[in-house]
Amino acid sequence: MAEDAEFGIEGRWAVVRRHRIRWSECDQYAHANNTAYLALCEDLRVSHWLSLGGRFALGEPGPVVAQMEVRYLRPLAFDDEVAVTMRPATLRRSSLTQDYAIWKDGLVFTCRAVLVLVRHGSGEKVPIAPAMRAALIEQGATEEG
Amino acid sequence: MAEDAEFGIEGRWAVVRRHRIRWSECDQYAHANNTAYLALCEDLRVSHWLSLGGRFALGEPGPVVAQMEVRYLRPLAFDDEVAVTMRPATLRRSSLTQDYAIWKDGLVFTCRAVLVLVRHGSGEKVPIAPAMRAALIEQGATEEG
Amino acid sequence: MAEDAEFGIEGRWAVVRRHRIRWSECDQYAHANNTAYLALCEDLRVSHWLSLGGRFALGEPGPVVAQMEVRYLRPLAFDDEVAVTMRPATLRRSSLTQDYAIWKDGLVFTCRAVLVLVRHGSGEKVPIAPAMRAALIEQGATEEG
Amino acid sequence: MAEDAEFGIEGRWAVVRRHRIRWSECDQYAHANNTAYLALCEDLRVSHWLSLGGRFALGEPGPVVAQMEVRYLRPLAFDDEVAVTMRPATLRRSSLTQDYAIWKDGLVFTCRAVLVLVRHGSGEKVPIAPAMRAALIEQGATEEG
Repeated sequence: MAEDAEFGIEGRWAVVRRHRIRWSECDQYAHANNTAYLALCEDLRVSHWLSLGGRFALGEPGPVVAQMEVRYLRPLAFDDEVAVTMRPATLRRSSLTQDYAIWKDGLVFTCRAVLVLVRHGSGEKVPIAPAMRAALIEQGATEEG
Repeated sequence: MAEDAEFGIEGRWAVVRRHRIRWSECDQYAHANNTAYLALCEDLRVSHWLSLGGRFALGEPGPVVAQMEVRYLRPLAFDDEVAVTMRPATLRRSSLTQDYAIWKDGLVFTCRAVLVLVRHGSGEKVPIAPAMRAALIEQGATEEG
Repeated sequence: MAEDAEFGIEGRWAVVRRHRIRWSECDQYAHANNTAYLALCEDLRVSHWLSLGGRFALGEPGPVVAQMEVRYLRPLAFDDEVAVTMRPATLRRSSLTQDYAIWKDGLVFTCRAVLVLVRHGSGEKVPIAPAMRAALIEQGATEEG
Repeated sequence: MAEDAEFGIEGRWAVVRRHRIRWSECDQYAHANNTAYLALCEDLRVSHWLSLGGRFALGEPGPVVAQMEVRYLRPLAFDDEVAVTMRPATLRRSSLTQDYAIWKDGLVFTCRAVLVLVRHGSGEKVPIAPAMRAALIEQGATEEG
């Protein structure tokens, strides 16, 4: 992809999105704040969920973050152009892991998230539906356990 | 402390702060969003830094988050009363780890952060000053490596 | 009240709340960002609504902001201590105005908001209930039109 | 412009930007929160300032919001596609007004902001530079007073 060269992206990613660091994402150290990176990951997570046929309505299963491991490798500044990437990693019955990264002249940030599928309203765990599981495997995810 | 019983806090923490979940912290799942927890940790991190004599001015060293490991154990809702706790954990030359937790009828959230002391402006790493190191050890931190 | 002298508050306010400007509220101009002030107003609006017996559940009427007029008189910086104040101003059938202010050595910020009571879910306008209207008048609100 | 028909935009605007409502912009009423609209306006304000040759560095003049008048006409929901528009309106010596609007099947939101040019660091007011004034007039701004 064109973005691979422009941003120094390595590896295969299911989703790539350009972003320009916003004024509202920067704190008084003049750097993008830690939480801004996670909201960018969230953007990809929810649009990816929609792209798989998922919904966020009451009674529907949706992904809820249970764990995250994040690394901030280099700071980002206002108006920096970056690429945010995402891919599913491993699948269990009703949970999955996803990898996120942010790139600008190479790797800037990584995040691995553990998501649990939870029914909105009841809070009960819901297994990954077969068609969604197949789509995730096609995007590079592997079955775990 | 009174908060220990009220919120089911376990262990010894250097900082304890009450918080009531804000409307602006909740998303359309009607739960506090992942990023809101991290901003609450940030509040304790920066006030703790000030309490140790640290500053956030240009030319001064300040703590920058390099890594975080977070676990969301139970959801929080608008207007929930919680306690946010923080303690320093391990110290290296110019970096340290801190533990954070959020409590409501027991443990709701945990976070371990790796912080690097960086001079605001130049970006160079700065060793933890001896007096600050002593204060952190008094709060329960241990030397590492 | 003690806060009147400490923060230079003028006039009579139904709600007064202390606040310390957060790191996450400041942008790279090292000032509290415009939006942070409005989230502080929102905090008072929702807790005031709860104090009047209002709720935010599906099917219940809740206040929705239709208009705001805001003035930023002086900047606020990280760790500044301020008082946020709120009072109802005028009442119509299913809408009302509220005044907000922020104080630090005198007036820093003002906001007049027009709120409409809307049923959560259907979106229909709902008249202010008689008991709530009486409570608002006791807090200084006046009937309009 | 293509966006005029797609979003029902009326009038002439100096800047038009597409946006998709983010999960992080919505609150538990499942609507974009009041503050999110203002951050979208801010995005246009700062990129417009850069496009005019302005900068945000220490010692440089930058636009600071002094007043805003905002109207929320219709709610916006997660994943809604909107257009955000901006144009300069009136110019004084060291202040100007700007109009913002958000569109989706017609008008959804309006904002008029009064901005003051302030030197970052000293806080002193700075006159609008002649070249910038000329560019703003070319975009439809009118001299006031």
